[in-house]
Order: sequence, then structure tokens, then C-alpha cells
Amino acid sequence: MKIAHTLLLATALSVTLSVPARAASDEPISPIKPAVVKDQKLVELGKKLFFDPRLSKSGFISCNSCHNLSMGGSDNLKTSIGHNWQKGPINSPTVLNASLNVAQFWDGRALTLKDQAGGPIANPGEMAFTHELAVDLLKSIPGYVTEFKSVFGQNSTVDIDEVTRAIAAFEETLVTPNSRFDKWLKGDKKALTPTERAGYELFKDSGCTGCHNGAAVGGNTFQKMGVVEPYKTDNPAEGRFAVTKEEADRFNFKVPTLRNVELTYPYFHDGAAQKLSDAVDTMGRIQLGKKFTPDENAKIVAFLKTLTGDQPDFKLPILPPSSDKTAPPKPFD
Amino acid sequence: MKIAHTLLLATALSVTLSVPARAASDEPISPIKPAVVKDQKLVELGKKLFFDPRLSKSGFISCNSCHNLSMGGSDNLKTSIGHNWQKGPINSPTVLNASLNVAQFWDGRALTLKDQAGGPIANPGEMAFTHELAVDLLKSIPGYVTEFKSVFGQNSTVDIDEVTRAIAAFEETLVTPNSRFDKWLKGDKKALTPTERAGYELFKDSGCTGCHNGAAVGGNTFQKMGVVEPYKTDNPAEGRFAVTKEEADRFNFKVPTLRNVELTYPYFHDGAAQKLSDAVDTMGRIQLGKKFTPDENAKIVAFLKTLTGDQPDFKLPILPPSSDKTAPPKPFD
Repeated sequence: MKIAHTLLLATALSVTLSVPARAASDEPISPIKPAVVKDQKLVELGKKLFFDPRLSKSGFISCNSCHNLSMGGSDNLKTSIGHNWQKGPINSPTVLNASLNVAQFWDGRALTLKDQAGGPIANPGEMAFTHELAVDLLKSIPGYVTEFKSVFGQNSTVDIDEVTRAIAAFEETLVTPNSRFDKWLKGDKKALTPTERAGYELFKDSGCTGCHNGAAVGGNTFQKMGVVEPYKTDNPAEGRFAVTKEEADRFNFKVPTLRNVELTYPYFHDGAAQKLSDAVDTMGRIQLGKKFTPDENAKIVAFLKTLTGDQPDFKLPILPPSSDKTAPPKPFD
Repeated sequence: MKIAHTLLLATALSVTLSVPARAASDEPISPIKPAVVKDQKLVELGKKLFFDPRLSKSGFISCNSCHNLSMGGSDNLKTSIGHNWQKGPINSPTVLNASLNVAQFWDGRALTLKDQAGGPIANPGEMAFTHELAVDLLKSIPGYVTEFKSVFGQNSTVDIDEVTRAIAAFEETLVTPNSRFDKWLKGDKKALTPTERAGYELFKDSGCTGCHNGAAVGGNTFQKMGVVEPYKTDNPAEGRFAVTKEEADRFNFKVPTLRNVELTYPYFHDGAAQKLSDAVDTMGRIQLGKKFTPDENAKIVAFLKTLTGDQPDFKLPILPPSSDKTAPPKPFD
């Protein structure tokens, strides 16, 4: 009797719950899933490394400098500032939900977060260090050596493979679930205002979801910047062509995620659009051949702002101090 | 009867507690007291401002860039990096326990933390902004406007006075109690090893506590750099003379706190001493006319490393996003 009752209840619940679930699965955007942390010690080590400016030649630039987790995982600059105040070639993409991308960087030249993590450290225009110097530096810091052994085992030699594995593991935790839009997707019909809901319908009906879809609302394909009408820019970036050397890939860029887009201004690979309304206008024109009215634009912007999810929620990491054996940084060499 | 019993217990406790208390009061160094937060909302606002690079012209440099709370409240550079990668004139002092200083900056030109906080924002060699632009920027950010009103009342206009009050209130929380040395001072005789204890005795007997005393183990007087023998440096800083214009103050600098000194390398106003052992050696020679043996030096260093207290313990602040009215940063102008 008790079993039958429980079964009945379970069936009733299943029916109730399946309605919003089925509705969500019909949508081109799916909710962000919370991070599943497999190795908390690895994540904690990666967090420290992410915040450690000693991985740069100057001792001044960390991963967090250009992917600032207080500011949507970006630097909110048109293009980034690198070693010796060099002007970066491209807009810094957000690290939030980067684990959902098909590949990393605007041109997808790194297939994984781990591959990406080693890039800026050794890029002369960014952190301007080398993997060898970064590893030597970490080996000179007793607190890190102990932590690497604790994470990777007593045979850990502290190498760049371990360094980038740790940074990637931390970055995998940087997903942003629980946005208002995701609450709506999951069945909370009050999570969006009528204007935001109308903006979403416009976003779909206009074709934006052709590229901006999936959990990250983008990030899963490379697309030509300027399908209907050419995109004018002084920025020399060639997009995916730089990787494949195939003419068809020229000016193809990874479609950026629109998750947390309210926080990741300015927009596009060249950072040319300071305002979200400008970005929506340009995208409509050059990708879809549509001129959104001010009212339509405002509705789409209102929808896009519902994509802001839970921001990073952890304590500021405290870094282990250097030792007498640590080579001092060289900011002005 | 109950009152008498309570009194008796109180008296007994008082006797028990007074033994270590009396011992501690005989020492030239006193324990760091935990922060007493009067206005948590003010502190939270100040924390955001401390981490916000939009208070700089470039949008890239925040208070935390040179007073990195992950690294002992300093940047661990010889001299700091300012706007456009300018080489700073002096070593960045730690913000940890700065509330205990008699005045701020190496030359004491700011009397309070509030006065100090406005300095770097408007310094062309540091954050290179102006107070007017900083305030305009904050006024353009709805999240800040709301928070200023919540903290300062509905009549808040968001001005530089409020900005620096908030930053100072946050900085006042950045004290570092519970170091091993303080535990020893409070009566836990096992908190120090015999070597560390011997180092402390040497530190006192050699005269170091003549200047490095009080809760901050320094920070409470200005002293000549090079009392017994001149200090050789290429650094042009004139010390307190720059403020008073009195010859007697030439090359007088604020005695730095030695709290968390293990984390605040390199040392001296010119950052010339990379290692703590070098700093101890130089101080012995030029301030006290003493040449410490390697064994004595090691003991003093061991003692100094017991001054590391509780490091900042809070969540990474999430900053409110800019709006369409916010002037974009100008890193390359």
C-alpha cells in the first residue's frame, strides 16, 4: 500500500516536472549546469596560479589581469594591455563558461582550456615569460612545491603540464548557472518580464539563435564576421584563417558566448562596440540583414541582460611567498 | 550567594589571565588587535572600490594592483608599475596594518588612510586619473550609485570624500592578528621555537626595537636611513624632507612595519634588498653599527617570519557593471 502510494506520487511528480522540462528542451538555448568538481585540491591550486602575477616576466600580470573575475571574466578594455603596456591585438574573451567553447581564443587555435592556459604566459605581448622560467619560479616557492606534491603526488616535478592542468581545472569551475533566463527555461515563468520575453522571441525569430545557441548561447561554432554586409575594422585579425590557412576561413571567428554579456563589454573581436545596443544593431545588419527598430533593439538588450548568472563565489586566494631562491621579476628589462 | 560566587570566579580568572597579560606588556611589541567593523556596508563598498581598475585612466590599475591582498598587501616589485608602464619612484608599502601607521606613504605626506586613498588615483605616474573623472565614472554606474545611497544616505552625491572614506574603512579591516609571535606574546609559550625566541632576544638586545616596536613593529616614527653609516642608493627619494623642507628631515623615512615582512619583499624604500637576510644585515650595519654573524642573522630572520598573521579573508568582490553612460577607459591615450 505504501509502495503503491509512493509510486503514484512519483508518477504525479514526473508528469508535473516534465512539462517545463519538455518546454526547455524545445528551446535553442539550454541552461548552464553547475560545475562538478572532481578534484578540489587541483582547483584550489589552479585558482592560486590564475591569480599569481609571478607567472609573468614583470611579476605584475596574472591570468586575472585580463580575465578579471570581478568583472565578468574580462578586462572590459577594447584590446588588452600586455607586458610593457603593449597594446594587445584582440579583445580579451571572457573566461566565464569558457569550458563550454568548442575551442579557445577567437580563432580557436587552442582546442582545450589546458592548451589555452600556456599561451599568454609565453606570449611576448602578454605575460612575456617562458614556460621554463614559469616552472623554475614555481619550483623556487616552497609553498607551491608542497601543494603540487599534494595534488599530483610525491613524484610531481612541477612542470608546465601540471601548471596548465591546474589552471584549466579551476577555469572549468567558472560556469555561471542560475541566470534569470535559465530559471525561466526551467519553468519559472515569472523569472522574465514581458519585455525580456518579447526580446527573446525577437532574438529567436530574427535568426540570432542560428549561431548563438546551446548552453553558452554561442561558443560552439566559427562564423564569418559580416555575412550579409562586410564588417569594417582597422583590426588586422584574420580569424580562423590564421589557424587553417584556408581562404574559406578568412574572417571566421568563434561565435562569442552571450552568457553574462552585460558584464563583458566592449564587444566583438576588435572591441569596437562599447554598448550592447550597438552590438545588437551591428549584428542585425551585417549578419542577418535586419535593421532592428529602437524598440526591438531595447527588447533584445533586455533579454540579453537576463543571461547574467552566478558570478565567481570564492575567497581571494592567498599566494605562497617567494623564497631567497626565487628570481626577482624583471618589469623594466 | 550567587553574586559572591561569581565575584570569586571573576577574581580567579583575573589572576589567571593577568600573568601572560603582564608579561606581554613588558615587551616592546604588542599584539595586533582584530578589526572592529563599525559599518559593514561602508567596508563592503570600500572593498569594491579597492579592487576596481576603473578608478584609473587605463581601466587596468586598481589599488589592489600595487597593494595586492593575495601577496601581503604589496606588489613584491622593487618599485611599482604605473600608468603606461611607468617605473614608480619608490617601493610600494604594504596596506596590511597600515591603519597603525603614524602617517601614510614613506614620507608621511598623508596623515590618514583616507587622505592616502585619493593620492594614487590622481597621481599621473600611478593610476593617472583625476578625482573628478573617478567620481563621474562611479556616478555613471547604477550599481555604485545605489550602494553609495545605501551607505551614505539618499542624499549621497558620490564624491571623492565618500570614495576615500569607503576605501579607508575597508583598509582599516586589513589588520593581521593571530601571528605566532602574538600567540607567544599572549602566553602560548610553545608558539615559538627556541631559534625564533633567540632571534627575538637578539632583535631586542641589538636595538632593533628602538624603532621597530608597538603593535605594527614599526610604522610609528620617522627615522634617518643610515644612522651609523650612510645608505647608498640611486633612488632620489628625500624622505620626510619632501614634506617638511627641514634639513633635519632629509632622508628620514617612516619606519616600515615588520608585520608580515616575510610576504612584503623586496625591502627598503628603494626595494634594494631582495632577501630578508640582506635587509637584516644592512639594518644592523647602517642603523646599529652591528655586523650580525650568519647564525645571528638567521635567528633574527626566523623571528621575523613569526610576525606573519591572518591574511585577508573575504570573497573576491564582484563589481557592478558600467552603463552606456560610462566613459570608456583610455589605456593608450
